Amino acid sequence: MTFTLAKTDGSARRGTLHLTHGTVETPAFMPVGTGATVKGLTPDELRSAHSQIILANTYHLWLRPGLDVLVAAGGLHTFMQWDGPILTDSGGFQVFSLQARRELDDNGVTFASHLDGSPQRFTPESVIAFQEAIGVDIAMVLDVCVQLPADQATIARAVELTTEWAKRSSAAHTRKETAVFAIMQGGLDRSAREASAQALVALDFPGYAIGGLSVGESREQMHELARFSAALLPAEKPRYLMGVGTVRDVLTAVDCGVDMFDCVYPTRCGRNGRAMTRKGEFAIKNAGYVRDFTPLDPDCSCFVCTTFTRAYLAHLFRSNEMLGPRLLSYHNLFVLNDLMRDARAAIEAGSWQKFRDSVLQA
Amino acid sequence: MTFTLAKTDGSARRGTLHLTHGTVETPAFMPVGTGATVKGLTPDELRSAHSQIILANTYHLWLRPGLDVLVAAGGLHTFMQWDGPILTDSGGFQVFSLQARRELDDNGVTFASHLDGSPQRFTPESVIAFQEAIGVDIAMVLDVCVQLPADQATIARAVELTTEWAKRSSAAHTRKETAVFAIMQGGLDRSAREASAQALVALDFPGYAIGGLSVGESREQMHELARFSAALLPAEKPRYLMGVGTVRDVLTAVDCGVDMFDCVYPTRCGRNGRAMTRKGEFAIKNAGYVRDFTPLDPDCSCFVCTTFTRAYLAHLFRSNEMLGPRLLSYHNLFVLNDLMRDARAAIEAGSWQKFRDSVLQA
Repeated sequence: MTFTLAKTDGSARRGTLHLTHGTVETPAFMPVGTGATVKGLTPDELRSAHSQIILANTYHLWLRPGLDVLVAAGGLHTFMQWDGPILTDSGGFQVFSLQARRELDDNGVTFASHLDGSPQRFTPESVIAFQEAIGVDIAMVLDVCVQLPADQATIARAVELTTEWAKRSSAAHTRKETAVFAIMQGGLDRSAREASAQALVALDFPGYAIGGLSVGESREQMHELARFSAALLPAEKPRYLMGVGTVRDVLTAVDCGVDMFDCVYPTRCGRNGRAMTRKGEFAIKNAGYVRDFTPLDPDCSCFVCTTFTRAYLAHLFRSNEMLGPRLLSYHNLFVLNDLMRDARAAIEAGSWQKFRDSVLQA
Repeated sequence: MTFTLAKTDGSARRGTLHLTHGTVETPAFMPVGTGATVKGLTPDELRSAHSQIILANTYHLWLRPGLDVLVAAGGLHTFMQWDGPILTDSGGFQVFSLQARRELDDNGVTFASHLDGSPQRFTPESVIAFQEAIGVDIAMVLDVCVQLPADQATIARAVELTTEWAKRSSAAHTRKETAVFAIMQGGLDRSAREASAQALVALDFPGYAIGGLSVGESREQMHELARFSAALLPAEKPRYLMGVGTVRDVLTAVDCGVDMFDCVYPTRCGRNGRAMTRKGEFAIKNAGYVRDFTPLDPDCSCFVCTTFTRAYLAHLFRSNEMLGPRLLSYHNLFVLNDLMRDARAAIEAGSWQKFRDSVLQA
């Protein structure tokens, strides 16, 4: 993996990430394909919506279809027929946020599968081995996420363990086609963030994620901490802010000097009938759209907006027709990817602030 | 509308139907897009799966989105962005089969909307007016369907009223771009079928449907009555057997001299994880497919079969991922359309019986 930074404009960065399965122009949004599928969409559609890299979840893939099926398939890329770059989350976030019953110890975390209750165990080594075995481009280290609010000692302990596990992940890393990124923790505590960044940067990972944000804190806190955290990371390496995917949040993330982000937000909104545009979001089921024969988003050039009307999409959602979630998911991804393309052009042109403000104030 | 019969081979017929929105090579299968959408699929996909004409339901469209929205949209074609031929069922079948509370009188049928309980009324005239107003290529007359078993008097009365309503439908017909087809009734009673056919043929409709079959009778009874009924209809006009859509049933229908058929079967199966092939059907969720890295149907050239494995499709269904229903619906439609294409070629080549037997005995 190599990362080249072509241009900066304020804190915003324009870079290129060369990965085993292709190139990612940054800043880039990564759609979430939790269980080896970005819900409702084919790989061809992900491409045509200008997705460059997708995210999948170690937690979900580990439980289903499981390592043996994915390896027998020839890896995750072949299994799901997406030939572009894939980043997998480590499962740390899922184990700590979704699992009521889990047992953390110094060497890993034991939990019960949400599918069948079977006992499962993640260690820093097993999670890296899994991600390498399924052939992803970027693997994330197993991290310890604390649920906020938490006291300083708990946060400090999570940072310490995350650092320790990052060290072990690095030692466990064997496959050069898979790059391993570390994850900064520290909750909303600046000194803990500093300690986390300092320790992880010393371990010289090829990329760094900012974890533990977008987990329920206020938007202002998130933006402030993201900016603070991004600045702690080395300029020459890619920075990935986890769990961010609204128009406002991705613009802010770019403005903080972040290069990559992921979120289920656009596809989850799409399934629920919430249309994203640069000018705001709206619920397509609202009565006002039943007789609205204009495009979903007049500023969008995606096939949904150039083919169908709001009235038709409203009809699909009001009738619980599965074509609705599919079309709106596509559109929402297209909007975010399109926004990123324009963001990249603006940074290149040195007009980032103007672009950012024009969207945020629309 | 014109229909030309190019070739017959036994009772099987190879024809061409010229409609306002295009040409349909027959025999042809019509996918069902009940509520202005073939569930889960885009119009482009219907085309690429080789669908030539689709069916929609007056009953459902009448209730939602309703006449005013469809007319304001510029008609059903524009609303759903399918530019090929559309046939709409009259709603007779839905009112009589889905509605527990409905009041039949000589002039029409009154029922409560299943959406909001509001009172609704279909008359032969209102149903034709609706179908003409939304601009379909083929409109069906309002018919009276009896639930089987029924006594002779009930069946005779239904046939009589269906004939009377067909007369009124014909008189109500004003738009030359929309062809109106009559519907033969008569249950499983051959003399009632004869009476129905005789009366309707005398009214000189441009096409005839065989209704009241595929409603719970045995497959043998259905095949026997379809053959008997088809032979009662004029050779020079298209014959449409309603509600038929398995591989075996469509082949039998063609063998009976039927030109068109429709059914929710392929898309409903697709949503439920049931894969159709010429060699039989199977449930993709079965354990045997979890590690099966062969194509869904090795004999199929659709994009699902040339892209994904059974293992991946099994994974999607086991994970309740919406991509699964979408992909299997597409494949099932492709299989039926592909079967029809080969059936047409076999009739042209004079090898229909051989083709039919080769599929039925596989």
